[in-house]
Amino acid sequence: MSNVKKVVLAYSGGLDTSVIAKWLQETYDCEVVTFTADIGQGEEVEPARAKAQALGIKEIYIDDLREEFVRDFVFPMFRANTVYEGEYLLGTSIARPLITKRMIEIANETGADAVAHGATGKGNDQVRFELGAYALKPGVKVIAPWREWDLNSREKLMAYCEDHNIPVDFSSSKKKSPYSMDANLLHISYEGGILEDPWAEAESDMWRWSVSPQEAPDSPTYLELTYENGDIVAIDGERLSPATVLEKLNKIGGANGIGRLDIVENRYVGMKSRGCYETPGGTIMLKAHRAIESITLDREVAHLKDSLMPKYAEIIYNGYWWSPERKMLQTAIDESQVYVNGDVRVKLYKGSVEVVGRRSSNSLFDEKIATFEDDAGAYNQKDAEGFIKLNALRMRIAAGKGRKSL
Amino acid sequence: MSNVKKVVLAYSGGLDTSVIAKWLQETYDCEVVTFTADIGQGEEVEPARAKAQALGIKEIYIDDLREEFVRDFVFPMFRANTVYEGEYLLGTSIARPLITKRMIEIANETGADAVAHGATGKGNDQVRFELGAYALKPGVKVIAPWREWDLNSREKLMAYCEDHNIPVDFSSSKKKSPYSMDANLLHISYEGGILEDPWAEAESDMWRWSVSPQEAPDSPTYLELTYENGDIVAIDGERLSPATVLEKLNKIGGANGIGRLDIVENRYVGMKSRGCYETPGGTIMLKAHRAIESITLDREVAHLKDSLMPKYAEIIYNGYWWSPERKMLQTAIDESQVYVNGDVRVKLYKGSVEVVGRRSSNSLFDEKIATFEDDAGAYNQKDAEGFIKLNALRMRIAAGKGRKSL
Amino acid sequence: MSNVKKVVLAYSGGLDTSVIAKWLQETYDCEVVTFTADIGQGEEVEPARAKAQALGIKEIYIDDLREEFVRDFVFPMFRANTVYEGEYLLGTSIARPLITKRMIEIANETGADAVAHGATGKGNDQVRFELGAYALKPGVKVIAPWREWDLNSREKLMAYCEDHNIPVDFSSSKKKSPYSMDANLLHISYEGGILEDPWAEAESDMWRWSVSPQEAPDSPTYLELTYENGDIVAIDGERLSPATVLEKLNKIGGANGIGRLDIVENRYVGMKSRGCYETPGGTIMLKAHRAIESITLDREVAHLKDSLMPKYAEIIYNGYWWSPERKMLQTAIDESQVYVNGDVRVKLYKGSVEVVGRRSSNSLFDEKIATFEDDAGAYNQKDAEGFIKLNALRMRIAAGKGRKSL
Amino acid sequence: MSNVKKVVLAYSGGLDTSVIAKWLQETYDCEVVTFTADIGQGEEVEPARAKAQALGIKEIYIDDLREEFVRDFVFPMFRANTVYEGEYLLGTSIARPLITKRMIEIANETGADAVAHGATGKGNDQVRFELGAYALKPGVKVIAPWREWDLNSREKLMAYCEDHNIPVDFSSSKKKSPYSMDANLLHISYEGGILEDPWAEAESDMWRWSVSPQEAPDSPTYLELTYENGDIVAIDGERLSPATVLEKLNKIGGANGIGRLDIVENRYVGMKSRGCYETPGGTIMLKAHRAIESITLDREVAHLKDSLMPKYAEIIYNGYWWSPERKMLQTAIDESQVYVNGDVRVKLYKGSVEVVGRRSSNSLFDEKIATFEDDAGAYNQKDAEGFIKLNALRMRIAAGKGRKSL
Repeated sequence: MSNVKKVVLAYSGGLDTSVIAKWLQETYDCEVVTFTADIGQGEEVEPARAKAQALGIKEIYIDDLREEFVRDFVFPMFRANTVYEGEYLLGTSIARPLITKRMIEIANETGADAVAHGATGKGNDQVRFELGAYALKPGVKVIAPWREWDLNSREKLMAYCEDHNIPVDFSSSKKKSPYSMDANLLHISYEGGILEDPWAEAESDMWRWSVSPQEAPDSPTYLELTYENGDIVAIDGERLSPATVLEKLNKIGGANGIGRLDIVENRYVGMKSRGCYETPGGTIMLKAHRAIESITLDREVAHLKDSLMPKYAEIIYNGYWWSPERKMLQTAIDESQVYVNGDVRVKLYKGSVEVVGRRSSNSLFDEKIATFEDDAGAYNQKDAEGFIKLNALRMRIAAGKGRKSL
Repeated sequence: MSNVKKVVLAYSGGLDTSVIAKWLQETYDCEVVTFTADIGQGEEVEPARAKAQALGIKEIYIDDLREEFVRDFVFPMFRANTVYEGEYLLGTSIARPLITKRMIEIANETGADAVAHGATGKGNDQVRFELGAYALKPGVKVIAPWREWDLNSREKLMAYCEDHNIPVDFSSSKKKSPYSMDANLLHISYEGGILEDPWAEAESDMWRWSVSPQEAPDSPTYLELTYENGDIVAIDGERLSPATVLEKLNKIGGANGIGRLDIVENRYVGMKSRGCYETPGGTIMLKAHRAIESITLDREVAHLKDSLMPKYAEIIYNGYWWSPERKMLQTAIDESQVYVNGDVRVKLYKGSVEVVGRRSSNSLFDEKIATFEDDAGAYNQKDAEGFIKLNALRMRIAAGKGRKSL
Repeated sequence: MSNVKKVVLAYSGGLDTSVIAKWLQETYDCEVVTFTADIGQGEEVEPARAKAQALGIKEIYIDDLREEFVRDFVFPMFRANTVYEGEYLLGTSIARPLITKRMIEIANETGADAVAHGATGKGNDQVRFELGAYALKPGVKVIAPWREWDLNSREKLMAYCEDHNIPVDFSSSKKKSPYSMDANLLHISYEGGILEDPWAEAESDMWRWSVSPQEAPDSPTYLELTYENGDIVAIDGERLSPATVLEKLNKIGGANGIGRLDIVENRYVGMKSRGCYETPGGTIMLKAHRAIESITLDREVAHLKDSLMPKYAEIIYNGYWWSPERKMLQTAIDESQVYVNGDVRVKLYKGSVEVVGRRSSNSLFDEKIATFEDDAGAYNQKDAEGFIKLNALRMRIAAGKGRKSL
Repeated sequence: MSNVKKVVLAYSGGLDTSVIAKWLQETYDCEVVTFTADIGQGEEVEPARAKAQALGIKEIYIDDLREEFVRDFVFPMFRANTVYEGEYLLGTSIARPLITKRMIEIANETGADAVAHGATGKGNDQVRFELGAYALKPGVKVIAPWREWDLNSREKLMAYCEDHNIPVDFSSSKKKSPYSMDANLLHISYEGGILEDPWAEAESDMWRWSVSPQEAPDSPTYLELTYENGDIVAIDGERLSPATVLEKLNKIGGANGIGRLDIVENRYVGMKSRGCYETPGGTIMLKAHRAIESITLDREVAHLKDSLMPKYAEIIYNGYWWSPERKMLQTAIDESQVYVNGDVRVKLYKGSVEVVGRRSSNSLFDEKIATFEDDAGAYNQKDAEGFIKLNALRMRIAAGKGRKSL
């Protein structure tokens, strides 16, 4: 284990990654570079500096990646109306490739030959970190302490802290939760605890980002979202940066009880897992994006996108953001968004998002043709006969030759 | 137009199809058989008998098809988590194949050589009726009066009624609505009127089946749904027939403001169209079916289903229920449902459906493996390293040869 | 029929389109512009000028479109390894969009308000022409004489010619064939005659572009094809233009008995049809393109391409080249070809094409890893255990819970 | 390593698996059961008995699985026209699930708790064996000696033989080949040696099952193949069992130089690998099966099958035959074959297979409709206009609103 010289650690400032920082120094006898990113998790990142220094770290990176996160990861993903297994908006999955990209950049800048992370050997995150790391820096050494060490209980961790003078209290506030949580600008997730019984309802005080629908205001909130090339660029007429768009939607959505989700999902490593999620802004964005597409996308393009989406979602969930197949699909998805411009009006009320209006200078909705009133010849109803007859021809021939359809 | 001897007409008892019944007799000089079905549209069908008799019809069929509708059409469709264009639950689409099937049966019983319907030349329903008719009886003559006659305004229709002694008042109650509506046990739909402007919000008094979320009760309703082979067989422990399941879910869902939808969709005939839908029971069923599948389906089977679903939805939307490709897909979907057994708990509240629990004797959720606690060796975290390394290999090789992932 | 002022006719110079030119003038009382294109059909196009003049045409367009055809249509299609229904290389389908594009350009240049073509009402070509025309010039009037007139037998056509002084002899050489044929740089096709019996073998003297395998040389021919971005740019080291590449491959392939095909295919209009094709160069290109991709494409990109190909082929076959969904797919396909560079060696012999070598500076084939010999640690065989264990996990859990796989 | 009591070894009788038999006894101190199957590899299996006895094996299984192999594995796979990466007929992949199934049956019969195989850690076969083993017997212990031991050179193997009195000469005949080979009734494969250079042509004396096209007869061979439900049941009118069908096609195909293939493929473990294959019978079957389907399958069913095939091929190649997703797809594929009955005539000549005729009592080819001659009204050409107009509508609307298709 002596062949590692310098390792970049994804460092949250919490207990686990603090232990890892020390354990890496001790076990690999190597320099550790910490990297802490603000991706909207809702905690200050600056305090991580002092904690890292206390651990003897000399190279400390602290970055605000919020705009990059939304602009280059969240928004591109939402262009595809991406949903994993019909429900999950991929809040954790989409943050990993950015963390990994920055880790590798820092490894290159600091001359590190290894990277390390605090994800366990049972989850998806280890896969997402490491696939990205190998894709971006093929010779990198990846260290996943949770798969290597024997500190596999809270007691052992605590003992390690005591032995190594790692102050335990600093993470006390967060760790009172019985849940394993993860947060970024797109969502917060909960796993473990009583959630390990899929029949048990989540406790009402678990949720942190949203009020319950019952507690939400008794009157609805209307929003007008403006799209350009498939991305939201303004809310109620006010032009906003990507991260600000998402922050604002989270706030308004959360206040209206929007975006709670309770599912059992299939992990890439082969097991089923119960997770609860709050994705207020993302829930609004998914609904609104479909609405703006509904008037601006060609039918066959929309259907093609729908048929590709499950694959695209799987690629992201499984950790292949930095793969050539994701890039190939993204090219097609982005091409489809050229005309996805215009406004969507949504109504938020006690947990539900309704679309109540959509308009676009690129609209393909043609009132003259669609009308139930006189269309002045815009559409010739007689065309429908030939359309149906030829579409039926193969089935008529088959039935005529005795095949049964029932 | 004299080569038609007898035509089976899908007869609602309303003004339009009454005019059609008379017009068919007059134009084709043929016998007309009327067929009126109860598929849960919420109106009495028996009154259609007297109206048909008044029009001189001798062969009158009135059938209660509600159980067949849910058992053989709605339930099979929901096994696939079917959604068209991300939103629409296909309430109108799924009723047409049943109507068509019964029309053709009646044509065969009565020796009719033609069928007729009251759908316009702009919509999807003409396609669905006629594709089915041709598939089930390839030599049948299809008559679509709206594409043939010149009664293309309300005034001309009224004049026709007056000339032919068709009592206009009998449909007066319904026709006060400015919307074109269609209803069956799965949903009620609204088109036309101010909905032809996609930016205009639907008027609150348009909706008929559900209260608005604002008017819904202030406390949530919990339901326990029991599944066998992918279909709901009991609610809160009470075993119910398919149609009764859906009726009950509609009632409870509607009372909780659930299932309203406002979309612009792409019709098969090539235009975009605004529609509003109320699908209370279906909205609950979609959510709950995904939940029971989440613990009972294998991951790859679930993903395969998700990738096939858009195609399956398109087939149904476009009117190809009676096609061999639908049958082929159905075979696969039904095969996947063998283990989809168990219970789902849902929470209904002011327009939203949340899943709060799921359990099954066929559950693939393995707490021993998924746990964050000590798993006693059920899962070897070290396996993850090889898993990731080999999954990354192709990307490592590519990066090693100079390809860029960024 | 008087509302057409000027029509652009796709004019081959043959009997049928000469009759059409006259019939259009007479029936629509309009000006006719003829357009004759050289797309490599192997007949002189210049003689069409005198024939058109004899018919009283004043605006005559004769274009050599061979390079554009291969560069912008054939090559892009081959980047996707496109095959319709497992066999057909889409030789006719891919030529139509180019003809249509040029027709519409000429309509715009000459101020024509209509276009006309000589395709029948039973085939795919009418669809391909007209979908393209409507997509490129939505207000255009399309005239398809074969669907309108009553000249539906050879006798009536001849009588028409006599009545209108159209010289019949000029097409005598070609019309001795009992087959309906179509040719361009990619292929020649045969339909009709005895081919209408799918059990009957095509007569050996039907084939025009290739010798039979039996007559081909007794020794093999080797070729080295050089690819850049998925397209062939050189043969045996000689840099060639796109059309010249295809001409040369046709010649060499045809001389070696390569590219004959005899199939029953499904037309878009709903019927099955027997067709025979000779596609010598295309057959070589398909095989060689897969070979260069086999060493330069990432596995998942290759598999994604394979999964998209049937849809892409269907789009082209059905006539939707000028659709947004084709464009969306093309974007993804072209993106995948960035690294598809290098050389392929093929061996042609009596009807068969074998790939015997492939190399590339962008090769992802890694001998050090793939070797059966000592790989000096390039690949750690122990990684495979974890890889397999986790990939098997979902099935192990299912089997552990009693599910049967047999 | 002492927790294994009894292991079932897939035993070929060759040197490698003989060493493994001994090594298992020694390393795991366990009983070894050998299992040798005749799946048409072309070598006697009975001699394996004496060799196993000489190694001290007491439980020896020798089975003739040829009929089961073709009936339950090869034929079902060919129903889907299965091809991996456009070229490979999956000859090795399809044999593994049968071997695994029988191994597990024997493990259950003999009370063994482990299975072992002789596949290396770099290839696909280890994955196929082990995924199947885990799916069929989730608690089984899998031993893959090549991933565990240090006998990783020929020299060390030989030394081991000498030390353990394993007679080396018994495999001398086969081991003169510089290639790694695998054979069964569907194919023989070659890897390694000079094939590790993808630019090098395979040596002509490598191929064992087929003559070269140059050496094949100078006159073509015609065959008539009879299909029932998608499987060949007779050749030239003679009813044959599944294995006999394939044996006969291999013989005739091989004699005509048919079925050689030279490719670079993507292994599931992440590397590219060069392989050469001879699949004479399979090459004929693929071509002929498409031909019988071309007249008996509905168009949309055929296209759906084509769109599913790449996924199905990937599943088999990667080793997931015993997975629920393969079963789900198989159900759909088998459903599609109900009408795939009839005869196909093929012409074999110097390496090429041509279909020259197909007929079926379930044919959907309708000469009356398809004809170029007078069709007596079977098809109304005027229907095409409406068909095209409505299919074009979405593109006309888009173009009318200014979108560009070029």
